[in-house]
Parts: sequence; C-alpha cells; structure tokens
Amino acid sequence: MNIETRPVPPLDPAFQLSPERLLARRNAKWSQYAPDVIPAYVADMDFMVAPQIQAAIRASVDVADYGYPMRNGEKADRAVAHAFVRRMQRLYGWQPDADLTLVLSDLVQATYAGVMAFSRPGEGVIVQVPNYPPFRTAVEDTGRRLVPLEMTVQPGGGYGFDLASLEGQLEGVSVLVLCNPQNPTGRAFRREELEELLAFAEAHDLTVLSDEIHCDLIFDGARHIPFAGLPGAAARTVTFNSATKGFNIPGLRTAVMNFGTPELLARFREGFPGRVMGSPNALGIDATVAAWDEAQDWLAALVAHLQAMRDHLAARLAAELPEISMQRPEATYLAWLDCRALGLDRPAFDVFHDEARIAFSPGANFLPGAEGFVRLNFATSQPILDEILDRMVRMVRRNR
Amino acid sequence: MNIETRPVPPLDPAFQLSPERLLARRNAKWSQYAPDVIPAYVADMDFMVAPQIQAAIRASVDVADYGYPMRNGEKADRAVAHAFVRRMQRLYGWQPDADLTLVLSDLVQATYAGVMAFSRPGEGVIVQVPNYPPFRTAVEDTGRRLVPLEMTVQPGGGYGFDLASLEGQLEGVSVLVLCNPQNPTGRAFRREELEELLAFAEAHDLTVLSDEIHCDLIFDGARHIPFAGLPGAAARTVTFNSATKGFNIPGLRTAVMNFGTPELLARFREGFPGRVMGSPNALGIDATVAAWDEAQDWLAALVAHLQAMRDHLAARLAAELPEISMQRPEATYLAWLDCRALGLDRPAFDVFHDEARIAFSPGANFLPGAEGFVRLNFATSQPILDEILDRMVRMVRRNR
Repeated sequence: MNIETRPVPPLDPAFQLSPERLLARRNAKWSQYAPDVIPAYVADMDFMVAPQIQAAIRASVDVADYGYPMRNGEKADRAVAHAFVRRMQRLYGWQPDADLTLVLSDLVQATYAGVMAFSRPGEGVIVQVPNYPPFRTAVEDTGRRLVPLEMTVQPGGGYGFDLASLEGQLEGVSVLVLCNPQNPTGRAFRREELEELLAFAEAHDLTVLSDEIHCDLIFDGARHIPFAGLPGAAARTVTFNSATKGFNIPGLRTAVMNFGTPELLARFREGFPGRVMGSPNALGIDATVAAWDEAQDWLAALVAHLQAMRDHLAARLAAELPEISMQRPEATYLAWLDCRALGLDRPAFDVFHDEARIAFSPGANFLPGAEGFVRLNFATSQPILDEILDRMVRMVRRNR
Repeated sequence: MNIETRPVPPLDPAFQLSPERLLARRNAKWSQYAPDVIPAYVADMDFMVAPQIQAAIRASVDVADYGYPMRNGEKADRAVAHAFVRRMQRLYGWQPDADLTLVLSDLVQATYAGVMAFSRPGEGVIVQVPNYPPFRTAVEDTGRRLVPLEMTVQPGGGYGFDLASLEGQLEGVSVLVLCNPQNPTGRAFRREELEELLAFAEAHDLTVLSDEIHCDLIFDGARHIPFAGLPGAAARTVTFNSATKGFNIPGLRTAVMNFGTPELLARFREGFPGRVMGSPNALGIDATVAAWDEAQDWLAALVAHLQAMRDHLAARLAAELPEISMQRPEATYLAWLDCRALGLDRPAFDVFHDEARIAFSPGANFLPGAEGFVRLNFATSQPILDEILDRMVRMVRRNR
C-alpha cells in the first residue's frame, strides 16, 4: 500500500481482538462463511465490548444470579426504560416517558409489532429503500403493502429522498417506517429533512415508526435528532432504540419501544396485550443499562476509530477503486458501495465472495434489483479493513 | 424442634447458598420484601445453578461473545429446538419435530400468544383453577372468557378434576390450557386423566395448550407424560416448555413452543408472523442447551433434595400444624396450603406476612376467593424451610 491516506490513530488496545480471537467467536459474522473469507457483512463489530458492560454481566454471572430479576425495587425491565429516558434527556434534550416505554427483545420484533398494530392488512407502509432487510419482511410477512421511498444520490452528493415521488401511491397508507441514521446509506437526517417528513406524516395522518438504533454511531459534522422530539411529532411517533448496535451486544437481545403518547400505547396494547411481547433477560437488561449510563467514554473512542476507518475507506476507494462509488456515511459503520461501474455480469456480492473471498451484504437484500451494490461493514481494525481493500483492489485489477 | 421426621440427606455443598449470598441476590425472591421476611413465594430456587450451565455461560462471557449468535452452523435458537427434541425423545420417548418448535422468551408469552392464535375474542378458554396467575391474565387481557376447571380434593386424597362440571359452559369454548405438572397443586396427571382430557378436547374440538414447564421436578411414584405424545393428541396440541424452572434460570428467558402439526404452526403464524415473537438471547440459549443436554445428574440431586423437603414439610405440618391441610405434591416445589381451618379473619397471606414475617404467594392470586390458601415454595435448604415452619408454628400457637 503506497497511497496517502489520512493518518489513522492506532486502535486502542482495549478494543483489540486478534484474528484468532475473532475466528474463535461463535457469532454469525465470523462463522457463517468459509475460514478464508473475510466477513464484512452482518452488523457486528470486531471489538471487545465496553468494560462497564462486562462488569455488569459478571456481577450476575459470578454469583449465578439468574432468578426473576428486580432492580431498584422494580421489575428489572423498568431499569432499561429509565436508562433510556435518562440518555435521551442527557444527549438530545428529548424527554420521553418511561411509563410509555416497553422493553422487548429486538427492533425486528418492534417493527413487526408496530406495523401490525398501526396498520391493517392490505394497507401501505412507507419504507426508505434501500433498507434493512427485516423492514421489508415485516411489511410483507404481515400482509401489508410496501411503498418505497427511494434514497437517491443528490446533485451535491449524499443520499436524499423526494416525498413528491410518493404521489399516487398514498391511498390506504397508514405507517411510515423511518430509519435514522439510515441503514445502509449512513445518512443522519438534518432537522429540515425530519420536519419535512413530519409535515408529510401529518398531512397523510401516518404513524411514524422511528428506528434510531444507529444514533450512537455518528460522525463529526452530523448529529442525531430524535424524531419524537420534534414539536408535534410525539402524538404519531413510536421510537425504537437499543444499545445492541452501538455497544455491540446484539446477542443479548434488549430493545425499547417508546410511545409518544398514552393513546399510541393504548392502540398498541389492543393488538399486543399483557406480556405477549415476552420479557427481556436479566443480563441484557444489565448490559444495556451499563452501556447507556456508564460507557460514553468507550463509545467516544469507538466512534473516533470508526470515523477514521470510514475516512480511510473513502480515501483508498477514491485512489485505488474509482469504479466503486460511495457516498461517505455520516453515521453507522456501514458503507453502501455502488459497484455497477465494474460491469460485473453477476451480483457484486457473488463476485467478491468467489473471487476476492470477502463476504459483503448482498445489495439485493436491501433493494430488489440492486445486485450491483454491496454493503460493507467497516467496524473492524485497520489491518482487516486494509486486507479487505487489498483483496478488492487485486480482484478489480485482474478483471480490468 | 423435637418431632420425628424422615431423615433429610445433607444438602450437597454444590447447591449451598448462605443467607448472605441469598440476600445479596437481585432476584425478586430475595429483594421484594423487607429483610426480616423469609420469601417462600415466587418460583425461584435458593440453590446454585448446575455447573454445566455456568460453564456454558462463561464460555461466551469470558470472551464477550455477544454478537448475533450461531451454533452448529444455524441460527442459535435452533440449538434449543434440537436440544428440546433430544430431551423429549430421551426421557419420554416422545418425538417432537424441531422444525415445528419455536424458541421464544417465556411461557407467559407463549400462553398469551397461544390463546390469541387459537381462540377469538369472546370465546371461552378452559383453565384449571387454582392456577398460575398469568394464565388468568392471558385470558382476561386478550378479551377471552375464562372457563374454570376446578381442581378439588378427591375422596381418596389428592387433587383431581371433574370434566362433567363444565357442562353448560362449553358454548364457544375453543382452547384448553393444561398445566401438567400442575401449579400450584403439584399434581402430575396420570395417563388415564390425560386420556380423558384428550377425549374431551376431541369431543369439543379444543386446541390444547400444554404447559409442561415443571416436568423436570417430579417425585418418586409419579412420572411425566407429554400430552402431545398421546395417540391422536398432536394434531390439537401446542406444548410449552423451558429449562428455566427445573434448572432455576428464569431471568435468562428462553422457552419453546412446539406445534404438534404443521397445520397448528401455520394457524399460529397467521396471527404471529415472522419475528414478532422476538429472538432469544445467546446466553439463555447456551444455558438451556447445557441444562437439557448435560445437567441430568445435577437435576437428579436437586429432585432428591426437593423430595426430602416435601416430605419434611408434610411431616412437620401433620405433626405441628394439623389445622393446615396440604395434599402432598407429586411434582414441583410448590405446596398449596389450605389454611381455612385456622379461622383467620384476614387473607392468610397477610397474616403470615404481618405476624410470622413469611412471604408466601397469596391464594387469591391463583383462585379468586381463595384468601384462606397460600402457596409455599419449598425449594430451599432445610434450615430455611425449618425457620419458615418454626415461624408458622409460633404464629399459629399464639393465635390458638
């Protein structure tokens, strides 16, 4: 490698995981593909979790405290709701209500349930595309109609959306699924974009399901704005969040679903009464509270590293792979790579997998027809990211 | 204490938890009530978990392996389904289908979802009474009608039921919730009782939701018979099970819901498509597989201790508290105590709590009107059980 890139700070040893350690993991990322394939797909980071999370988990594990959990005199899931409220107030000045915050397993569950509770079979659900694949299945599996809001590259660069493109498709549309920051484009929407979405939701009387799971992973120049905190938004907004993405604990399955008003919660309860959503587990609860209350320094170091990886990725792509186009993500550790100019005769995922031994996420998972795209996960160390890029460069050069 | 009781084997040190350790736990059992109150209520045992469970959890915790979990090349929840199938085959000769086995959070969730999927609002759901309180809320919260099947003391002793008592209440009844072994009576139903229930379900075309979570805790002379394994039962049976009860890991929230036929699963999926039930957590998955596959010796030692505690309890009640009547449980670590002959002027729970500083489960939670009953949890060490009994005896003697 002889190109100039922005200097990348050394990875904090606290984050460091050797390739051996990574391969020994039993997570999907490092066990789905053949051992010579580098995984750059599922939203899982190649780093140790925050020490505060480990300490919280060990506090229960060391004494095998696996009974019906209570924390602070309440059922333990309430501790997650309170930690969520504290965090939203502290970081964004938004004051959600803990009593309107349910704790459940994951955001996929929340999306299915939200779609089912706030629309009827046959009705339309607006979803940004490309999108996180379970958004699509949550609409299709429940017999609703997906109304795509396309994310397109704007004249000045970066992805944007055009609500006017939905004209003529709005009959019987009841829900808008917002993903902010957006996966896979990495957009963190500006206030005026969110206000435009809110005005649109008001005009068409839509319930907004706002997935904000990537809000912790946001880079210089961007900021996160909780949708429900916009004036007038709460009455139609259900907010989904979780520490599992920003703090890398998806296997612990703990998420929140906040309802902007008691009326929204009551509507949800009609379809999902009592404990039908299940009960969160004690270790996921403690890990989430520790992440949200105590691990902000760890998160800051993580985000600095991710931003450096993003910039390194952008620099090397620009210098060595100009055929691959990327709009620099403002948030998330996901890059949506437009590989169409490579002129591949097979899906880009297949070619990179077979010829470069890299497992990206296939573009078609996020948008039917987007076989020329892949999603790259850059939440790894620089040596691994460089190995991915080296393999991409060699493959592209062979095929030039 | 100077009465004669059956000799109680010393508690295996591997199970031993000191009062200090118990009070340090953050589970509901040891933190709900004031420190001078001995808890004997929630279904949580005062013992260490099996070392196999601890080892399975530590395997992930020691390397912070909290990513999207895979086991044996599949999504990790499938490992639970396979372990369930292996266990049912090994212990009971029943062969459920792993592909018809969903893994979810807990049996309360399964009960709510099962009632919603297999009955319509306004229809009747037969539930044995007294019963586990969430069965009642699962019927009431979902707008169904509870049809009680009373468990009554039979002429020869022990609890039984009389299906003829349901005559006249069967219009619009679609579901029978069976709890076997039964909580709180501790009955493990005999084959002929189950066959009678099956013939009744067939005659009235009922779906049977069979909660078998206590099947691991069964004493000499009784045995567990999976309801779905009865000839002809599978087509109308959904079986709920979990390692959380027998192996004392309720906070880890992992349970299975097995459908006897693809048609039953398809009916369930109409109401609960895709991932709306959520996803189980990695540590609960590993703990469950370890419990079901590897911890049978631990379980045998546990059950021997529980049986000794049951007998000790029965002997002391008979000798010192003849006013309190108990049908000796064949299974579970729960004793349903009929305290009506004490002639208390307040609910028995309140009197024992206020005057003896014991927290039982209030009888009315299991059966409206049963304020004269309490449920006692005898999954503790003999010293603690004796302290509970001593306090009961002193209180009753004061009031005689």
